Amino acid sequence: MTQVYNFSSGPAMLPVDVLKLAQEELCDWQGLGTSVMEISHRSKEFIGVAEQSEKDLRDLLQIPDNYRVLFCHGGGRGQFSALPLNLLGDKTTADYVDGGYWAASAVKEAKKYLTPNVIDAKITVDGKRALKPMREWQPTPGAAWLHYCPNETIDGIAIDETPDFGDDVVVAADFSSTILSRAIDVSRFGLIYAGAQKNIGPAGLTLVIVREDLLGKASKACPSILDYTVLNENGSMFNTPPTFAWYLAGLVFKWLKGKGGVPAMEAINQQKAALLYGTIDRSDFYRNDVADANRSRMNVPFQLADSKLDALFLEESFAAGLHALKGHRVVGGMRASIYNAMPLEGVKALTDFMVDFERRHG
Amino acid sequence: MTQVYNFSSGPAMLPVDVLKLAQEELCDWQGLGTSVMEISHRSKEFIGVAEQSEKDLRDLLQIPDNYRVLFCHGGGRGQFSALPLNLLGDKTTADYVDGGYWAASAVKEAKKYLTPNVIDAKITVDGKRALKPMREWQPTPGAAWLHYCPNETIDGIAIDETPDFGDDVVVAADFSSTILSRAIDVSRFGLIYAGAQKNIGPAGLTLVIVREDLLGKASKACPSILDYTVLNENGSMFNTPPTFAWYLAGLVFKWLKGKGGVPAMEAINQQKAALLYGTIDRSDFYRNDVADANRSRMNVPFQLADSKLDALFLEESFAAGLHALKGHRVVGGMRASIYNAMPLEGVKALTDFMVDFERRHG
Repeated sequence: MTQVYNFSSGPAMLPVDVLKLAQEELCDWQGLGTSVMEISHRSKEFIGVAEQSEKDLRDLLQIPDNYRVLFCHGGGRGQFSALPLNLLGDKTTADYVDGGYWAASAVKEAKKYLTPNVIDAKITVDGKRALKPMREWQPTPGAAWLHYCPNETIDGIAIDETPDFGDDVVVAADFSSTILSRAIDVSRFGLIYAGAQKNIGPAGLTLVIVREDLLGKASKACPSILDYTVLNENGSMFNTPPTFAWYLAGLVFKWLKGKGGVPAMEAINQQKAALLYGTIDRSDFYRNDVADANRSRMNVPFQLADSKLDALFLEESFAAGLHALKGHRVVGGMRASIYNAMPLEGVKALTDFMVDFERRHG
Repeated sequence: MTQVYNFSSGPAMLPVDVLKLAQEELCDWQGLGTSVMEISHRSKEFIGVAEQSEKDLRDLLQIPDNYRVLFCHGGGRGQFSALPLNLLGDKTTADYVDGGYWAASAVKEAKKYLTPNVIDAKITVDGKRALKPMREWQPTPGAAWLHYCPNETIDGIAIDETPDFGDDVVVAADFSSTILSRAIDVSRFGLIYAGAQKNIGPAGLTLVIVREDLLGKASKACPSILDYTVLNENGSMFNTPPTFAWYLAGLVFKWLKGKGGVPAMEAINQQKAALLYGTIDRSDFYRNDVADANRSRMNVPFQLADSKLDALFLEESFAAGLHALKGHRVVGGMRASIYNAMPLEGVKALTDFMVDFERRHG
């Protein structure tokens, strides 16, 4: 069979070694004679999974002790509601930096609960899409938080700066498509959340990292399954968590540690992105319209100069074992998502294919 | 290795054939060279899974055309909030029949959104725990719905009657631990929901079956991920659904159809329950304190007359391959959960062990 590299934006590729281990022990985990997905979340065996996975995540992201880690239901979109339902307290507004599709989706959901102050960060630099640097964001005095999305999966645009707005600004960020791909300073955030299905594990699990002084002020209307305080008090087991997804996330964390952790991933991710953007930039056949400073290392959208070749590109790339390269419907063209689990060889295979495709059809 | 039978209450045993198939195709699904959990929920391959699973479920439960089937995040507890957030409209109260731990938990969550009218159904019949029959429930005129839990997983108590309160009463029911275990008349319900981790698949997926005329009146405070109307309009893909759990649920539905569907399961479940309760009742060594009419066929709690033997019973049963028999912490003693996936042979192995244990220690 052709070696397959899967560029899906999410649910996305998992590390091959993780999947193989999961397969090996799917029907008989830890010699129990049952699957990890068949045992109680309150069993000592699963509690072991839960504790180890949190420990490994804390190591990987160097999460300070005054932050709680929650493993939740509901996906990133669930957090669009959970954020206002948990952190608004008696305030009435919050800042939302709009840098793309997902940031804007967070605004839409927030409007159910408050009057968001939207900071439009979308600008053009030398004809390329870009985002205003953080020094040009003006937090509203008295706003409950400032929300942004450091990596826009669909737009392929990223903000890699570290927030530095002082102690009065609670920064909340949707790290769904970039968590664990590069070093971050958790202490600069009040809340970090991420759907698992890009850089962590399978869909259905959501990670929340929240500074503990922000707990305890959930709205009465907050469903318990989204209530950070309730989840924290119950070790993320107020109700049955998505145990298999949690277990797989734990395997991914362990795999990351074995690979050298986040710094090692960051270095490889830099290489992967440089290779792919380099291939795009060296040619008039391919195009990416994001300014250098805001190019995503995780999601690389690109267009063919002649969009009539799109269908052929997708057909031939699929036949070559390069899957899921079709761009999101709101952007069109192609998109290669190259999360942690995508090896450098996968990007090499893609760029080799791109060069060859251009040679044959350019 | 000893043949293992897993009596966990949830996450619970899955059909062995389903797990084996999932293992076989975990790394290479449908010849794609990737795992089903690595592909987009919007790919034609996953849409195929979604459509087939809904079709199979509709066949299994004979769901009428005017009911929508939703595959959701958040578990049964998520539905404790979703129910009021979706169906209250301009009403102010709803009836909640309290028959046990989970029914009472639903009341607690409902209080965030309305003033529930609690109908205490817990009674004693001949010294045994029982529940008031439905004819003695008095729905409140003008209440938005009447909620009950037909099978209490922890208490091992069940209401097997079919609701018949007339067209004005919207019956909402938590079928988490009994769905697909016996025939039900869906048309008697406005809303049926069930966490997957007992009779459907792994934890992290929740099934909602809702009569379509009840859609369209969600509260503004309802998080979109819990909004039935939003989920319905988006084919349960408003956000990324828990795809692997959904896929496994689909395999379970297919397995159920292959076994003869719900009527065949009902017959086997009757046999299994009769065998286990019979073993308990024939002895003074074991005890179940639920009245015959309300005994759960899914969750069978039992006590040893001499509770000092509990630890030994658990140790020896585990060694014999009979896992997860420890009762819930609020009830104590033992509990055997015998959902669809538990074969008759598993219950036979348990009752043989029980007889032998009594012979040796009675």
